[in-house]
Amino acid sequence: MDEKFADPFGMKQIQAKPDVWAAEMQTADLKLSFRIKEVLHYAESKYQKILVVDTFQYGRMLLLDNTVMMTERDEFFYHEYLTHVPMCLHKRPQNVLVIGGGDGGIINQLIKYEETESITLVEIDEEVVKAAKMFFPEMSRAFENPRVKVIFEDGIKYIDGKKEVYDVVIIDSTDPLGPAEGLFTPEFYGNVRAALKEDGLLAVQAESPVLTPELVREILKNIAIPFGAENIWYYIGFMPTYPTGMWGFALASKGPRKPELMVDRAKKIAAKSKCYNANVHKAALSLPNFVLELLPDGAPQKTES
Amino acid sequence: MDEKFADPFGMKQIQAKPDVWAAEMQTADLKLSFRIKEVLHYAESKYQKILVVDTFQYGRMLLLDNTVMMTERDEFFYHEYLTHVPMCLHKRPQNVLVIGGGDGGIINQLIKYEETESITLVEIDEEVVKAAKMFFPEMSRAFENPRVKVIFEDGIKYIDGKKEVYDVVIIDSTDPLGPAEGLFTPEFYGNVRAALKEDGLLAVQAESPVLTPELVREILKNIAIPFGAENIWYYIGFMPTYPTGMWGFALASKGPRKPELMVDRAKKIAAKSKCYNANVHKAALSLPNFVLELLPDGAPQKTES
Repeated sequence: MDEKFADPFGMKQIQAKPDVWAAEMQTADLKLSFRIKEVLHYAESKYQKILVVDTFQYGRMLLLDNTVMMTERDEFFYHEYLTHVPMCLHKRPQNVLVIGGGDGGIINQLIKYEETESITLVEIDEEVVKAAKMFFPEMSRAFENPRVKVIFEDGIKYIDGKKEVYDVVIIDSTDPLGPAEGLFTPEFYGNVRAALKEDGLLAVQAESPVLTPELVREILKNIAIPFGAENIWYYIGFMPTYPTGMWGFALASKGPRKPELMVDRAKKIAAKSKCYNANVHKAALSLPNFVLELLPDGAPQKTES
Repeated sequence: MDEKFADPFGMKQIQAKPDVWAAEMQTADLKLSFRIKEVLHYAESKYQKILVVDTFQYGRMLLLDNTVMMTERDEFFYHEYLTHVPMCLHKRPQNVLVIGGGDGGIINQLIKYEETESITLVEIDEEVVKAAKMFFPEMSRAFENPRVKVIFEDGIKYIDGKKEVYDVVIIDSTDPLGPAEGLFTPEFYGNVRAALKEDGLLAVQAESPVLTPELVREILKNIAIPFGAENIWYYIGFMPTYPTGMWGFALASKGPRKPELMVDRAKKIAAKSKCYNANVHKAALSLPNFVLELLPDGAPQKTES
């Protein structure tokens, strides 16, 4: 038998490695554990527990309140999907706002867009940015980009009262428990809509359709209240270290126009990306039958499929 | 705050449930654990260890050699991708062969095709079929279908010498360790090619491109030896309980013709499926940049992207 199949999963190395693990309780009944080399950082901020560990499988990993936010090796999936799908659908994304995203992953994707003039990051927890700068230097270079402005404030307060300022708003929040709860309400989404320019687009991290389908349904319903169901899309991507490996995102358009893929821009971005390309973009918007059922009535994907 | 967001992940129930877990070491450094209600079955066959447990998150689960094969709630992903992609690409899939697949998941999808006249399942381990019939009655009804014939034999021996018998061959094997090793060799794939009729299609479970990219590259290279790289495609799907949640499949065509989606058949099958539809079919064949790199030179997806 071929030597190459000898130990593809590294099982022979079990004995040689330290048996120290970091685990996420993904739900009460499901746990994902990572063998770690070292605990690099632990802090309790005003808002949450911040933990950085070095894992053998995925490199360095950031956890907030014991939930995996990102790892060095697989962060590109989540950050590319959440950034490039809205950015490659907007005609001219000049001014972009990110709410949350203090780990720097989204802005690290956004600085790839030469046409984008200003990138504003509103993060509630300064300690997250500090940890990212210390332990994820490759990603957090983006904080030094002159087009990036960081504001430490509650995104809910920040957006309230803003009128037609942004082309694209990206909500990169934690789960709707604790500090991020208010980022999932119809009131908040209504304020985001007001802050968007004409033809503006909103993209939101929107949980796992496999594990918490009712939560996904609720998020989409809440976004549809200010935006209208006919302007709502859901899309999915692969995300190895998130529960079920399938992660969902919501997309909302302020304009009456259906946003269309800017193919040339997608090609440019694909050349600088590990996952994203124009085919992956379309694939993300192609929903399995059980996910289509979570969309509100009137959502375009429901009738187009 | 909205009541619906109160406990979407079921965390408040932790204390109320038994703290007994079944875990898969997905690699030496990565472990996925499932809280279980009960161990239903354990047997050691001539080939492998067979374990059936009842989990809170995913219902009943079958493990072979401590590796998750399927769960009641998420088996549809893997079985729909592995079955419907080749079946909806073939012009007239009358005679179908499944090698492995003793749990019944693939034949349970195949019996949806009215145009298919004969379905042959060649499984090395009779004990797997027995366990499936006992603990997965909904799925294993397929064994009673008059078009299904089950042969207990090593698939490698079975296929050797067969000439132009099958329209579609599906390899639903375990990982290339232990009993399934010989199912990943160029010799075996060559024998499968000979057993296919003109325009015949082969579909193969082909591991995780995130976790074991070199293994995926090797499998595709081995299939390309008899089939030719220009007749090889790779596709991916979501699979929550498999490592990384992204699973890969290889597709090989005997004919010179590029197989094209039979849209009417895909629509019929979508009406009976939880995941699969024509959009999902195209999405599965849309590969992220890092997966495209694993394809052999000359594979059509490499130049079409």
